[in-house]
Order: sequence, then C-alpha cells, then structure tokens
Amino acid sequence: MNTNVKAYGAKSATADLEPMSIERRETKPSDVKIEITYCGVCHSDIHTVRNDWQNSVYPVIPGHEIIGKVLEVGENVTKFKKDQLVGVGCLVDSCQTCSSCDEGLEQYCENGWTGTYNSKDNHMQDKQTYGGYSTSIVVDEKFVLSIPENIDEKAAAPLLCAGITTWSPLSQWKVKKGDKVGVVGLGGLGHMGVKFANALGAHVVMITTSPDKASDATSLGAHEVLISKNEEDMQKHNNSFDFILNTIPVGHDMNPYIALLKRDATMVLVGAVEPLKPFHGGGIIMGRKRISGSLIGGIKETQEMLDFCGKHNIVSDIEMIDMKDINKAYKRVIDADVKYRFVIDMKSLKN
Amino acid sequence: MNTNVKAYGAKSATADLEPMSIERRETKPSDVKIEITYCGVCHSDIHTVRNDWQNSVYPVIPGHEIIGKVLEVGENVTKFKKDQLVGVGCLVDSCQTCSSCDEGLEQYCENGWTGTYNSKDNHMQDKQTYGGYSTSIVVDEKFVLSIPENIDEKAAAPLLCAGITTWSPLSQWKVKKGDKVGVVGLGGLGHMGVKFANALGAHVVMITTSPDKASDATSLGAHEVLISKNEEDMQKHNNSFDFILNTIPVGHDMNPYIALLKRDATMVLVGAVEPLKPFHGGGIIMGRKRISGSLIGGIKETQEMLDFCGKHNIVSDIEMIDMKDINKAYKRVIDADVKYRFVIDMKSLKN
Repeated sequence: MNTNVKAYGAKSATADLEPMSIERRETKPSDVKIEITYCGVCHSDIHTVRNDWQNSVYPVIPGHEIIGKVLEVGENVTKFKKDQLVGVGCLVDSCQTCSSCDEGLEQYCENGWTGTYNSKDNHMQDKQTYGGYSTSIVVDEKFVLSIPENIDEKAAAPLLCAGITTWSPLSQWKVKKGDKVGVVGLGGLGHMGVKFANALGAHVVMITTSPDKASDATSLGAHEVLISKNEEDMQKHNNSFDFILNTIPVGHDMNPYIALLKRDATMVLVGAVEPLKPFHGGGIIMGRKRISGSLIGGIKETQEMLDFCGKHNIVSDIEMIDMKDINKAYKRVIDADVKYRFVIDMKSLKN
Repeated sequence: MNTNVKAYGAKSATADLEPMSIERRETKPSDVKIEITYCGVCHSDIHTVRNDWQNSVYPVIPGHEIIGKVLEVGENVTKFKKDQLVGVGCLVDSCQTCSSCDEGLEQYCENGWTGTYNSKDNHMQDKQTYGGYSTSIVVDEKFVLSIPENIDEKAAAPLLCAGITTWSPLSQWKVKKGDKVGVVGLGGLGHMGVKFANALGAHVVMITTSPDKASDATSLGAHEVLISKNEEDMQKHNNSFDFILNTIPVGHDMNPYIALLKRDATMVLVGAVEPLKPFHGGGIIMGRKRISGSLIGGIKETQEMLDFCGKHNIVSDIEMIDMKDINKAYKRVIDADVKYRFVIDMKSLKN
C-alpha cells in the first residue's frame, strides 16, 4: 500500500520551499525502502525549483544526494538487508536494455533515465518522482548504493552527486599516479575533484580566479594553486597538464585552459551545461588536444567511487542545516557562500 | 657547394608568383637531393603567399606536396638510392630529441619543426626554407618518403599534405570496418577523407551543404550523403556516428555535428584554424562526446599512409597545370573551383 510521508518542496518557480505530504509507493519485490537520514543540497535542486531549465513539474521535491537506512526490502532483493547504510544518487530508473545500460552507464540511457526527482515516475501512474527532501524513499535495488561503514555518513551524502560527477571523468580518462591534473573552479564539484585527484596520486593544481581560495585548496589536497587571471603564471604552465577537470558552471572562455593541456591531453567539462564562448580551432589542432564532457556517473562506477572513499577515508566538506533553513541555504548556495556543500539533517523534518 | 635552381615564388603579399632563382644547399652526409617532378597546390600555399597568417618572409617559394626522383644521396643515407621515387611533405626538420619526435610525431615537435617553406632554415644561415615550386630540393633523409611504384606519381603529390592530414586522425582514432564515419566538407581534404574511410571499411557519410556534390561524393566512395541544411535529415542521424572528420576550413557552428556523434564518439577538426562559433556545453556533457583536432601527420604515419595507398591503389583526384599558370590556379582554388587538387608538372618550369 502506498504511504504518505513528510517532505519539503516548492509549489511554483517563485515559491519558497515548504512542508508538504507526498505519496511513496509500496515496497515491490525488487524495491528497497529507505529511511532518509541525510540529504545533500545540490545547485541542480535550485535550478529545478526555480524552473531554470524550463522542465519543472510542480510540486518539486528536490534532493539527489540521499543517505539512509534500509527499513525493508522486497522479496527479490539480494544486495541489501534491513538496517544497512545505503545511498541514492541522481538516478532511480533506466531502460536496462540499451547499450549504455548494458555497460553500466545508465546516465546515458538511450531511452531516457529517470531522475530521482522531477522525472516521470515509472512506478506510479501520472506522477513525478520526488527526491530526498523527505523522510523516506522507495527505490529499485539496482539504483541503491552501499555506503562504507567507516566514513562519516552525513558527509558522504554529496558523494552521490558532486562526488560521482568528478570521479567519473577522472576514472574514465584513467588519471594515475604522477599525472599533472588541473581542477578548474573550487566549489562543490571542484573540492571533490581535488580530493579524488590527490588520492589517485596525481600532482594536483587548483586553477582558480581567486587568490583567497589558495589556502583552502592546499588543505583539500592541491599541490599547487594557479591563479587563472595571472597570464604570466598561466603561460609557464602551458602544454604541461595531462588532464584538466573543468567544473566552471557557466559559459566561459576555454582558450586559456586548452593552452595548458599537453599534446593528446583532455579537458572534461562537468559544469557548463550552456553555450561556451568561441574557442580557437588552432588551439586543439596544434597538439591534437581534446575537449569532452561528462554527466554524473553510472551505478557501477558510483559504487566503485564509494568503495574508494571507504578505502581512502574521503568525504565531502559540509555544513549541516535543518530542513526549515533550506530557503536561507539556497540563497547562500547562489552566493557561493558554502564550504562546500550543505547537508540537511533529516531528523529535523521527521520531528 | 650550394647551387642555384629555378623556382617560382612571390616577392610580397600582393605580388603574383613569378620565376626566380633560389639557392639549395649541397648534399650533406644524411641528405637526399631530389629532382622535383610534380608538386601539389595546397590552400596553405596561398595563405602563406598572401601573408594571411602574418608570418611570411619573402620571397615565399611555396609547395609541400612534392614528388620527385633521387638525384644523389649523402654518404650516410641508407633508406634511399639514386633514381628512387620519393616524396616530401610539410616537414623537413625537427629537433629529434623531444618526446613528440621520439614518438614519430614531428608535427608536434616541442622545440618547433621546420616547415618545407617559410621556416627558418637549419642548414643555411639566415635563410628561409623554400618549397616545391622549384626544380630540385635537398632534404635530410629522415624527412623523405618512399612512394609506392604502382600508383600514379603525379596524383600521389597531394597525399603528402591533404592525404596525411585526413589519414592521421582516422588512424589515431582507429576507424575500422563497420564504423559509421562522417566526413564534413568536400574539398581537397574531404575527398581524401572519403577515400580513406571507405578503404578502411567504414560506412561513409558525406556531410555537405551542397546537394550538387552528392554524385561526386558517391563516386569517391561515400555510401550516403547527408545535406547539413536539412534539419529533419540531420536529426534522423543524431547520436549515430562513431567518428566525424570535420574538414571545414573556417569557423563554423559545430552544434549540429556534435549532435550526430554517438556516446563517447569523437569529431576531429583538421581545417578550422580560427575561432569557432560558441557551442553548447550540454552537447558534449550528455553522451561525453569529444572534440579534438589534428595537424598534418608525422613521418612514420605518412609512410604508413603511402604504403596503404600503394596497397589500395589510392591517389588524389587532380587537375594538372603548368608552372606559368599558377596565378590563375590560385584564383580557382580560392573560388573552390577545382576537383580536388591542382598539381604542377614541374617539367614546365625546367624547360
């Protein structure tokens, strides 16, 4: 039987988030029912609430960095058991038949994947999916992740989006010990990029416009800080990077970063889902440099990332908030005034 | 002893090409002296003559698609002998010590390679290199290519630039039997791209703005022709290409071509050495598509390409001209009125 649970959501693009009651499906044979303990706050939550991408269906219940405890499992569930510490990220369904799904890359499902919120719900007719700003969620076990017991569970929440978004390209492009890796932009994504690249043994260079981020970058694991506004310093690093992870969330001039790449090296965009400024074709022809992109990550690689985090004791740097303070938190995210991710203590919604 | 030889060159950016006498170095121990029989006409010749890239030193003697016969070899030369059919492409020297040279990728020499014309000459103090619009040339054997005896030597001339420029990315990205390969633009480069991709066993789609190029494209080896102005047809091919070779020689909107790529597939630019129009970051993030570039090719892969041409009997489609008609030919190249490459019969200069 479907149940009603407490949640926080927005009724329109201009409304504040407020308490509401939402319906969750009953636990079907392959489902895991999860009591949500923590949920990270991603900039995408705000874009969706504000209908910035013109695809929001209200009410929007955001949240795709979900940590929780298994309440019950369906009869066919084999990977999870009651009370286990689990996570849910950006995906809760995909076709499971296309070549992308076959390869464990559900985020590129050729028939369209189901987002954790604001997607058509495959299990409840005429409903949208509702995210993690709520007390519980029911998810097919294929899309549930196991969270290592040794890491701080609340600080693990942002691994489910910010973590996998930066891990996936570092993994795909096989960043390894000794590589010189640039991370452009120090926010929710960038700070995870620095931690991962460092743990993979790379020589990590934080590339930022702000000299005042230098000490933070260093304490996160950057070996060098390169101020992108300093042309002379930038030129010293030209043609020297094996890989650049570009987390800038808006359109920008890529030419100075392309110049930093070695021959055959790649820069991957993970943030700029909008038109970029013109770049010079000669910049990639001379040195056959590569520009690519990457979208979150598949379930298989998300689990690999979480296991890596368990082994290397990696979590996000977070600031805890209560559910009722979410609207204030959104303002601070927009002002880039958070180091580096808000996480909601979901007890504050339950009580 | 240095010798004076007949040549054709330009004395300024606004002057027509005219007969002149130039100096060639004596044949040193590792040199090959070549009697030039044919020389292709590349659009870069015109750019250099007209100083379009603001780096021309006059007189400019163009020509880097050189075919000829060995006149004599230095005492240390092991790979070539008198009367052998040989070629010289865009490069005549490089540092031979950097990692790019070590890998046979002299075109990315980290200390700067020497172009066949309009580069500082490493062998003659205070001189520029002079290209193939002349009766002979002296080149270090490391930069001399062996031309298969079974192919039409005059039609082999454009292989040294147009050929290797399109071969190199097809080879680097391992285009193989059954791949769906798009070639954008049907000119000197594009027509070679179609021939090579076909010979490699790919399903070749010519992508062009001009419906009137369809029959030509088909006879060159394209299996399909896609008119890029027809949005409906373009959409049918979205997310279906394994590889796209983009030969458009000017800045352009890449978005429609990016949309054609499959997940993880690559588009390589070989023509547009100038700023491109803004493209949408989301287009490469969704499907982690790749944009790269490629510059001519190294000596090792140029020889591999020539050997492949020998095996598959591939040459360029050419129109022969006499040396004195070069200025008229330049006008026709600028008007894209040539199928697909002019080749100068160098006997016409000698006599």
